[in-house]
Amino acid sequence: MDHKRRLRDARLALDEARLDALLITHLPNIRYLCGFSGSSGVLVAAKRQLILFTDGRYTEQALEEVKSAKVKIANRLVLMFAAEWLAARTFTRAIGIEAAHLTVAERDVLLKVLRGRAKLRKAPPIIERMRMVKESDEIAKIRDACHLGVDLFDRLQRVIRPGVRESEVAGGLEFAARKSGAEQMAFPTIIAGGKRSALPHGRATRSAIPRTGFVVCDFGVILAGYCSDMTRTVYVGRPSDDERAGYVAVQEAQQAAVAAVKPGVTVGEVDQAARKLLYNRSLGTFFTHSTGHGVGLEIHEAPRIAAGQKEPLRAGMVVTIEPGIYLPGKWGVRIEDTVVVTDTGCEILTPCPKDLIVI
Amino acid sequence: MDHKRRLRDARLALDEARLDALLITHLPNIRYLCGFSGSSGVLVAAKRQLILFTDGRYTEQALEEVKSAKVKIANRLVLMFAAEWLAARTFTRAIGIEAAHLTVAERDVLLKVLRGRAKLRKAPPIIERMRMVKESDEIAKIRDACHLGVDLFDRLQRVIRPGVRESEVAGGLEFAARKSGAEQMAFPTIIAGGKRSALPHGRATRSAIPRTGFVVCDFGVILAGYCSDMTRTVYVGRPSDDERAGYVAVQEAQQAAVAAVKPGVTVGEVDQAARKLLYNRSLGTFFTHSTGHGVGLEIHEAPRIAAGQKEPLRAGMVVTIEPGIYLPGKWGVRIEDTVVVTDTGCEILTPCPKDLIVI
Repeated sequence: MDHKRRLRDARLALDEARLDALLITHLPNIRYLCGFSGSSGVLVAAKRQLILFTDGRYTEQALEEVKSAKVKIANRLVLMFAAEWLAARTFTRAIGIEAAHLTVAERDVLLKVLRGRAKLRKAPPIIERMRMVKESDEIAKIRDACHLGVDLFDRLQRVIRPGVRESEVAGGLEFAARKSGAEQMAFPTIIAGGKRSALPHGRATRSAIPRTGFVVCDFGVILAGYCSDMTRTVYVGRPSDDERAGYVAVQEAQQAAVAAVKPGVTVGEVDQAARKLLYNRSLGTFFTHSTGHGVGLEIHEAPRIAAGQKEPLRAGMVVTIEPGIYLPGKWGVRIEDTVVVTDTGCEILTPCPKDLIVI
Repeated sequence: MDHKRRLRDARLALDEARLDALLITHLPNIRYLCGFSGSSGVLVAAKRQLILFTDGRYTEQALEEVKSAKVKIANRLVLMFAAEWLAARTFTRAIGIEAAHLTVAERDVLLKVLRGRAKLRKAPPIIERMRMVKESDEIAKIRDACHLGVDLFDRLQRVIRPGVRESEVAGGLEFAARKSGAEQMAFPTIIAGGKRSALPHGRATRSAIPRTGFVVCDFGVILAGYCSDMTRTVYVGRPSDDERAGYVAVQEAQQAAVAAVKPGVTVGEVDQAARKLLYNRSLGTFFTHSTGHGVGLEIHEAPRIAAGQKEPLRAGMVVTIEPGIYLPGKWGVRIEDTVVVTDTGCEILTPCPKDLIVI
């Protein structure tokens, strides 16, 4: 975590964007730039200063976590406090705001306090773009989180049985994750059995695993601040020929997309590799979401691996590859790995068999 | 969950605010008004129409959950899809936006698609204000969630021992919550032992519970969509006189604030009841946060129980009462109940002893 290097790069990007300062309101961006992991804060990155504004609940935590920035504790709305600091200074160029992470109401607060003394302008996604390419110690942390995910899946296979509630399967997984040091789950655990496997976001419910059918297991942990993400789909009972064929198609689509990953290839091309295979098997219309997304401090971050997107992959990017098909009212299958782009292709961070497991 | 009644009330409020429609982007507000619990959606409440826009991942779920609204599945950015629908219609008055739940970038998308064909205006917090006063079946659900919380605390007391990791205590609690049907935790579980008890937001870490010191336990579940919230602080080992006195002061401050709760009293007066008691014991400066907040579909919702706030309590409001003191580098204590305002006072939804438990 070389916060100084990050700050230097951010300042270069700021200057290129002709901004005097960046008002950072997106918490993962704040964490990336200065290390603060609290839930309330505003970070101002100016040319010569880096100041974290937070509230009294985080006094101790901020002093412990933040080395590169000055910490100021707000005695009122944190954003207003930061705005007052800005209003008391002179800026020749505009102050950048994170338009995707600042509400209309918050901008109004800023404008009211600044009263024209500084101009606000939408900044390009400076920090998000820096975060896309991971540093080696970030990759190591994501690898650790992903390997924990793989261990947890081994455990899952032994727990999934007809009659067990999805929520109990998920709860056991989450407890095991905690015991292994996970801070929390990266997103609500998906355990979706039988017909519920056709719901791409079928969070674990009190439904019991049926006697026969697919069970989609999609889960991730947060370990040392970094997320993991993986999906495996198992079968309970005896799959029909259609179900088997559907599974194999998703498996091959997933492998085709993984094989496409290397520096210089666009994310749209990776998406297309998976999509084309499913269309060739007349299953393309059941693949109703994009192929993947970046993973890091956030479970969903740039780049999005979706049709038509032009972002070229670069070594150090960490992304998911997760095609799936969903036959409404019947069944669904999804297979997902997290991979890191290497100089020549990619490393699968979630090494775990993908052939159909029948329970 | 009388969605029709809610919609009727929302339309009356819309008309009062001289708006032709409300563009709802805050997911808990969407859920409140039409029942949809997915993670991607925009709800348009117009005079004669109620339309939920979501994406392909939620086709089945939306059809299952949403009875009162028409469902439209977007084949591109959901907000853009909703904006196009709005742009194709004629409005005489403005369309309200939720300024606190719409980013600057999202408003720009709207403006670009609407191209002046409809005017946007910041709406008052119509749905948030409706949600403040709970219906009887909502209170029943929050009560169930809170009672589950109380059961979980009984379990916690038996688990907290010197040497056990905070994360293991939290993990066990969360697993038990899952087994009892909780969909997920309402927020990251706080188990903060020893010096960490001085961190008001000390999420469970891998630190071990020390041989002596306070352990702050603050946790909540989500059960049938509704949140619970409670905090108890226990002591491991033998408390000093100062620690005992601090605990008793917080306990009395909490009881004073609970005693102040009844219809017509302002939330600021409730805050003052707790604060005054701590100031009288020269502990007021260590009470660094507000006294409480509303609880319902969200863990933090209106009203905020804070100094100077003028909102009068009304029967049916559900709020937390949670004063605490935090001596940096030393120790902290917080005691929290969730209560529902009744016609004459309040009912404590988290009935559980508050005298100091020494382990």
